[in-house]
Amino acid sequence: MPEKNALISQAKAVLAKNWTGEFTKPTANLYPHQWNWDAGFIAIGYAHYDMDRAEAELRALFRGQWRNGMLPHIIFREERSAQYFPGASFWRTHLAVEAPADLRTSGITQPPVQGFALWHIYQTATDKDRALNLVKELYPKILRMHQYLYAFRDPEQEGLACIRHPWESGTDNSPTWDGPMARTDLSRVQLPAYERADNKIGQAEHRPTQRDYDYYVYLLDIYRRYNYNEVSIHAHCPFRIQDPLFNSMLQRSNECMAELAPLIGESPMVWQDWAIHTREAMNHKLWDAERGTYNAFDLVAGEVIRIETSSGFMPLFAGIPSEAQAQKMIYRLSGPAFSGTTENPAYLCPTLNLQDPRLDFRKYWRGPIWINMNWLLWHGLRRYGYDTLARRVKEEAMSLIRQHGFFEYFHPLKKAEGEIALGAADFSWSAALYIDWELGGD
Amino acid sequence: MPEKNALISQAKAVLAKNWTGEFTKPTANLYPHQWNWDAGFIAIGYAHYDMDRAEAELRALFRGQWRNGMLPHIIFREERSAQYFPGASFWRTHLAVEAPADLRTSGITQPPVQGFALWHIYQTATDKDRALNLVKELYPKILRMHQYLYAFRDPEQEGLACIRHPWESGTDNSPTWDGPMARTDLSRVQLPAYERADNKIGQAEHRPTQRDYDYYVYLLDIYRRYNYNEVSIHAHCPFRIQDPLFNSMLQRSNECMAELAPLIGESPMVWQDWAIHTREAMNHKLWDAERGTYNAFDLVAGEVIRIETSSGFMPLFAGIPSEAQAQKMIYRLSGPAFSGTTENPAYLCPTLNLQDPRLDFRKYWRGPIWINMNWLLWHGLRRYGYDTLARRVKEEAMSLIRQHGFFEYFHPLKKAEGEIALGAADFSWSAALYIDWELGGD
Repeated sequence: MPEKNALISQAKAVLAKNWTGEFTKPTANLYPHQWNWDAGFIAIGYAHYDMDRAEAELRALFRGQWRNGMLPHIIFREERSAQYFPGASFWRTHLAVEAPADLRTSGITQPPVQGFALWHIYQTATDKDRALNLVKELYPKILRMHQYLYAFRDPEQEGLACIRHPWESGTDNSPTWDGPMARTDLSRVQLPAYERADNKIGQAEHRPTQRDYDYYVYLLDIYRRYNYNEVSIHAHCPFRIQDPLFNSMLQRSNECMAELAPLIGESPMVWQDWAIHTREAMNHKLWDAERGTYNAFDLVAGEVIRIETSSGFMPLFAGIPSEAQAQKMIYRLSGPAFSGTTENPAYLCPTLNLQDPRLDFRKYWRGPIWINMNWLLWHGLRRYGYDTLARRVKEEAMSLIRQHGFFEYFHPLKKAEGEIALGAADFSWSAALYIDWELGGD
Repeated sequence: MPEKNALISQAKAVLAKNWTGEFTKPTANLYPHQWNWDAGFIAIGYAHYDMDRAEAELRALFRGQWRNGMLPHIIFREERSAQYFPGASFWRTHLAVEAPADLRTSGITQPPVQGFALWHIYQTATDKDRALNLVKELYPKILRMHQYLYAFRDPEQEGLACIRHPWESGTDNSPTWDGPMARTDLSRVQLPAYERADNKIGQAEHRPTQRDYDYYVYLLDIYRRYNYNEVSIHAHCPFRIQDPLFNSMLQRSNECMAELAPLIGESPMVWQDWAIHTREAMNHKLWDAERGTYNAFDLVAGEVIRIETSSGFMPLFAGIPSEAQAQKMIYRLSGPAFSGTTENPAYLCPTLNLQDPRLDFRKYWRGPIWINMNWLLWHGLRRYGYDTLARRVKEEAMSLIRQHGFFEYFHPLKKAEGEIALGAADFSWSAALYIDWELGGD
């Protein structure tokens, strides 16, 4: 195994390779554009050794922000559009009055990590004056983004933002979306013609199914037909879900922005108000006391989705559970559902409960370990004082990287045979968060 | 009767008296703030003799435009707020993220007259370069406003914008709203405490009823509770109506902006597309072939509102009816329903069909003649070549002004006894449109 310094150099080389001159791609081929939450994690890594790039990463991302505040999940690089589906011409966001005029983006968002990414960059920065200038620059944009989420994604003022597409969750093909997706009989829907690109570049069996993709396109077609008009989408969207991962990112960003606001002479009040409201709503509506986790809530069906994924542990990152709730969560995390058994132990943290029949060790968000989820969980566990478990979550992620490289995701079983490292190699956020772990201190 | 020049001087004196230093009030006491569609008509009058004021009027109005494009129906003058209900503190629009930060406004809009007001100002201007600069300045703001109306007020993309409050129609207490308003049992609603100001300054019997006002406040309370969030309002609004007056103003503004766009190097295409769509929708959905008028459509009940008001003739102003449709409308206008009988003739144009049991000769928008409606109708009739009838509509309005002064509204019957001139004296748009008639040529 390569030693620490060599691995840090390799991680930096991954980011350098994926740097386009303007921003950092998630990986070389599969994802040729800029992705929203990827950019946040990538900037956190850059902050340790190249503040120019950290800043450039977030600036490039916010150039795609819509006038209504929405931060799109993809900012397209025009010249590469043909290599990715759905590309800019499929989204047709240039017909949306709220979309930026000078560059193309997707028409949906992703977990709002920018508030806490900015906070981490500020913490890491040695030149605090410079970092404060970045805070000043991004403050109104992040504020506008949270305003968008609390207005258009929470029309009942519950304190919980909803996602309207599996891609908005960040955990694209999580089994959490299976039920809501199954409600639509796609054989009765006129789908636009399309051709996938992801399963030609990536390995098809590790990628979402054709049925999944049809549904993704079905939703997208509704949104583009209404030119991404928020009121029309609200009226016609068959998929509206309050997800614990998404809302935990929002909540942690609220906390971080409330800390940053006074440093630039702004009031923390709006962030604090949102934080109180969201914390209460998470605990009131999404907490599953029986199993010790947070569920997603299906707004269209009006019911809780009782599927246990690693997203359910993300409220730890945002300080949402009480000490007692956290204890229940840790119990769950340490038990066979996520840690496996003595005979068949698992790395923490599988994306899905290992006893769930929908488990698929190699399929994207239906089982594998993801580095960003471990990073978030590590922070969450430390926040509640579970240092031993936190260290395990970190060490297991780092050891997978050391053994296999900066892959996109990994098989969760320790005794797995065959392919362990999955998805794209040289995946940017795996490299960036590895750097943060190595250089960020403990 | 005063002669022409003396009356023009009097009209200018009315506007001078109502000028606040920043904009022109509709009248001295009853309406102490700036009103949206009033400002448009007022600016048309100013353009004939004081371009500074014409420009100032529209600039002051657009300072209140919301970030989402909505142009509020009132821009509040902070210091006078206590004298008007509902004032800025009742609307609470400072909690709406889309509201402007530096001044207070209401949270609803009014008929979109700004596009054609700008066109009239440009036509009247002798200094065309200066007028083009105004067009350049206001172009993106009016575009944003129409985008707002076609996005948030037309989520089904029908080509028709809906109003969500009787005040948005401009014809506040028209009987058209009676049915939709009656659907709500206000005795089962917890209304916020409030005290009217309008019926203390104006004559109570010429003003809307207490029940009307309770309903106005009921709607307003829903909107402020959701901080004027468009998606929430769409979900909870019990009053959504496609009104022919509102959409005719929108349509004529589309036409006018399509003419102005190329003069400043902009494409007319977006305006033309809207215009085609709206014209078709008006004729398809709102045209009443049986009676020869355009009806309003109640989106909540999903039904046409068959009440004949002067708003039904406004599509003439926007070139919406065919020649054959226009002929039917003229027949209706010239008959007893609007022109009265030989024994009991009426001035054109009463706000409501004279045979309607809800008619009230002195009550605001339930019968009286309004100068702006005559001005719009006059343009409409000329557009279709009905010059004799057009002249009558203009002369009757001007004669009411000559006999009684620049009042807000007038009793429609020629043989009426008692009070003929109603509402506020020295009413700005009556003066401004009189000036346009006198100085605008024919």
